[in-house]
Amino acid sequence: MAKQNESAIKNLYGVILGGGSGARLWPVSRKFYPKQLLKLFGDKTLIQQTFLRLKKIIKPSKIYVVTNAPLADDIYIQLKEFGFKKENFIIESAQKSTAPAIALAASRVFKENRKAIMAVCPADHLIKPDKKFIETIKESLKPAKEGFLVVFGIKPVGPSAEYGYLKTDRKSKSKIQTVEKFTEKPDEKTAERFIKEGYFWNSGIFVWKAEVFLKEVKKHLPKVYRALKFPGFYKSIDSISVDSGVLEKSKKIKAISANFKWQDVGSWKSLYGLLPKDSNQNVIGENIFGVDCQKCLIYGTQRRIVAAVGLKDLIVVDTEDAVLVAHREKSGEIKNILEQIKANNLSQYFEHPTVHRPWGFFTVIEEGEKFKVKKVSVKPKEKLSLQYHNKRSEHWVVLRGTAKILLDGKVFFLETHQSFDIPVGGKHQLENPGDEPLELIETQSGDYLGEDDIVRINDKYGR
Amino acid sequence: MAKQNESAIKNLYGVILGGGSGARLWPVSRKFYPKQLLKLFGDKTLIQQTFLRLKKIIKPSKIYVVTNAPLADDIYIQLKEFGFKKENFIIESAQKSTAPAIALAASRVFKENRKAIMAVCPADHLIKPDKKFIETIKESLKPAKEGFLVVFGIKPVGPSAEYGYLKTDRKSKSKIQTVEKFTEKPDEKTAERFIKEGYFWNSGIFVWKAEVFLKEVKKHLPKVYRALKFPGFYKSIDSISVDSGVLEKSKKIKAISANFKWQDVGSWKSLYGLLPKDSNQNVIGENIFGVDCQKCLIYGTQRRIVAAVGLKDLIVVDTEDAVLVAHREKSGEIKNILEQIKANNLSQYFEHPTVHRPWGFFTVIEEGEKFKVKKVSVKPKEKLSLQYHNKRSEHWVVLRGTAKILLDGKVFFLETHQSFDIPVGGKHQLENPGDEPLELIETQSGDYLGEDDIVRINDKYGR
Repeated sequence: MAKQNESAIKNLYGVILGGGSGARLWPVSRKFYPKQLLKLFGDKTLIQQTFLRLKKIIKPSKIYVVTNAPLADDIYIQLKEFGFKKENFIIESAQKSTAPAIALAASRVFKENRKAIMAVCPADHLIKPDKKFIETIKESLKPAKEGFLVVFGIKPVGPSAEYGYLKTDRKSKSKIQTVEKFTEKPDEKTAERFIKEGYFWNSGIFVWKAEVFLKEVKKHLPKVYRALKFPGFYKSIDSISVDSGVLEKSKKIKAISANFKWQDVGSWKSLYGLLPKDSNQNVIGENIFGVDCQKCLIYGTQRRIVAAVGLKDLIVVDTEDAVLVAHREKSGEIKNILEQIKANNLSQYFEHPTVHRPWGFFTVIEEGEKFKVKKVSVKPKEKLSLQYHNKRSEHWVVLRGTAKILLDGKVFFLETHQSFDIPVGGKHQLENPGDEPLELIETQSGDYLGEDDIVRINDKYGR
Repeated sequence: MAKQNESAIKNLYGVILGGGSGARLWPVSRKFYPKQLLKLFGDKTLIQQTFLRLKKIIKPSKIYVVTNAPLADDIYIQLKEFGFKKENFIIESAQKSTAPAIALAASRVFKENRKAIMAVCPADHLIKPDKKFIETIKESLKPAKEGFLVVFGIKPVGPSAEYGYLKTDRKSKSKIQTVEKFTEKPDEKTAERFIKEGYFWNSGIFVWKAEVFLKEVKKHLPKVYRALKFPGFYKSIDSISVDSGVLEKSKKIKAISANFKWQDVGSWKSLYGLLPKDSNQNVIGENIFGVDCQKCLIYGTQRRIVAAVGLKDLIVVDTEDAVLVAHREKSGEIKNILEQIKANNLSQYFEHPTVHRPWGFFTVIEEGEKFKVKKVSVKPKEKLSLQYHNKRSEHWVVLRGTAKILLDGKVFFLETHQSFDIPVGGKHQLENPGDEPLELIETQSGDYLGEDDIVRINDKYGR
């Protein structure tokens, strides 16, 4: 068995599903900077935690990340320091839920290795300890090699209506059991019954041979299968989850009873459930001034104040540009509101005021008709592209560090408290030659201020 | 009678109590920019409405405003266009509630006219129509002249626990009745009984001879009376309301039944009661995205989003730098939170990010270690003081309008999109020579950025 496992591990690939938008955790999670990119627990983001967990058993060159183009830059910024390479991105041309995304990945690793076994992991789960997760992966390799689709089943800790459930035969006492039925998120009463009857939570973590999965896709989702051969079709296929598209139909499903602690950090309600509470059953962040509150989750930001008076069972999440106030049991309805915000094309749907770039980040601190003010932070030794703008001038005041500025072929150095003007059309490049971050205030002034008025002449990051 | 009234009107003075901090309407009301300075209803602020109402019967030179030094500038900015003169401020050296404030005003008008009758009006009441208010003032002149302290009684429209009540003899059917008892804010049950028994709300609007009031102060509040003679004592007297300090003790009280619509816009709860509601009994402002909410008051700002999901009986008030979420029936407890915010010396207690000045206003849009970014707006033809800073440089980018800048004796003109640097120690003056507002972004950079690092050489506004 040990030897068998060794060869299986050689064929093992990691597939991280990193394309989710984390809508139910808005306003902290945004479409173009969703929850998997956030440090919700500890000093690593959820996708970093996921990558590092897989890295304990799979080398980085064999770990793939399925995502969409707008997220790839930010994911790369977060994973490159751990050895992730850009060529290991699998970019969806459209978001089509998990079945097509996993099929894309299966197709890719199968091309690389016909014996490939893939461990499929969502990028936004909280798992402890990593050791038990690795053990479970190892234990899944045998049934996977035998041609089964192995689903990680979690023993429920409560009747959650937020997870799918799976029923096994429970005949064997072994950790590997045959799955009889998948169930979508039930109501709480049904969930209670499921728990009594020994159902597992469906964790959404899977181990299987790429070849086996692709055959099942061919059988149950022929349109998806065709899109793998002819990528032009990908945009026109229907969104469908791997649960309803493949797992509920396949006869080849096994569950493995996973004994690590697992949470899908899906909603504010589940986050409330996860976090340590005070004596009033509150989860209270920084800069919160509360009185007479019970069973609330209240989060704020560094610069603002949240005052909470006489609240019960509420979620209050304040960010720089939006605040959510929701009843805890109704926080799922936030999706309706997001549709409205999206329909109004408001930035709060898409991104945070702070936007990350390969060279650092910027925060839009004020914008109005014909002007925009940003705080810009450039990492040591990094530089922005050589660029110019057709419609705007830019005015910089250095707050911290040293700026090296190239303007129309001339070099200028700026120290703290000094300022500099970039005229319309001026070919300029901003660089941080120092060892500490460079921070500056940029005031943009002009008739058009969109991010698309950047004409890049030369870019270190290949943009 | 008509003739008598004519002479009484000649001796009539207006006294506006403009020193309140409006704490219960935080975060919209701030200590140094409280509710009476806000346009909560219509296009005039509450103190402007109060001044204009009195002006219909009293000329501006006879209308006084009692307030404290930090509010005087802002009140003056709001009232000068209606004829209010700076010399009509009565500045309290400390906030001591209504009895000492009214005594100060009584002392002042008595010095001016020994027959003075004063109409005392809080600056933050909503009254409609003005005509009936004026009628009630006129009807109060006779009993006032006869030596009574006349209190405006309002027929309650509901059992409010937010107002004081007064019981009259109800013997006469006349509008003027003798007051038997004053009652502080009761609980709701007691309030219901009061209404059945025909009590009035105590509006806090009074008409009386300054001489009579001063005699009552001498009798019932000798320490306050002494502070009128020796202003040095003012800071050491106890805070006491005119109700408990004078009215509850005096034998000379009459009530006049006022038949105008009256509201003390005291709290979010009362504001909710005042405002028109939608079919779900919600009062919803702009930029609010709500679903499944009932009986809520939800206010936002222009730049931010408020998302409300499944809320009931809540007050949600979002501002640029603070958000309040409170149960409607508990919104009074906000005072406890304000104590905490004050104890932490946070700016949100004292002022808004936007600060008004005689020449216009500025908004602090970002601040951090060693820098501050402001948006500055200068009214047409106005100018800031000629000044310099010992610790900071300033960098301006004009967004709109024309800036005339005097720097170390030289004059510069700046148009939209142009920028200018003011070095540390540079003697500078900013002026708007144009006919439209001048708007600019000011980035301050330096080791110390307090508002007190302004050395004024010359100031149009005498600061």
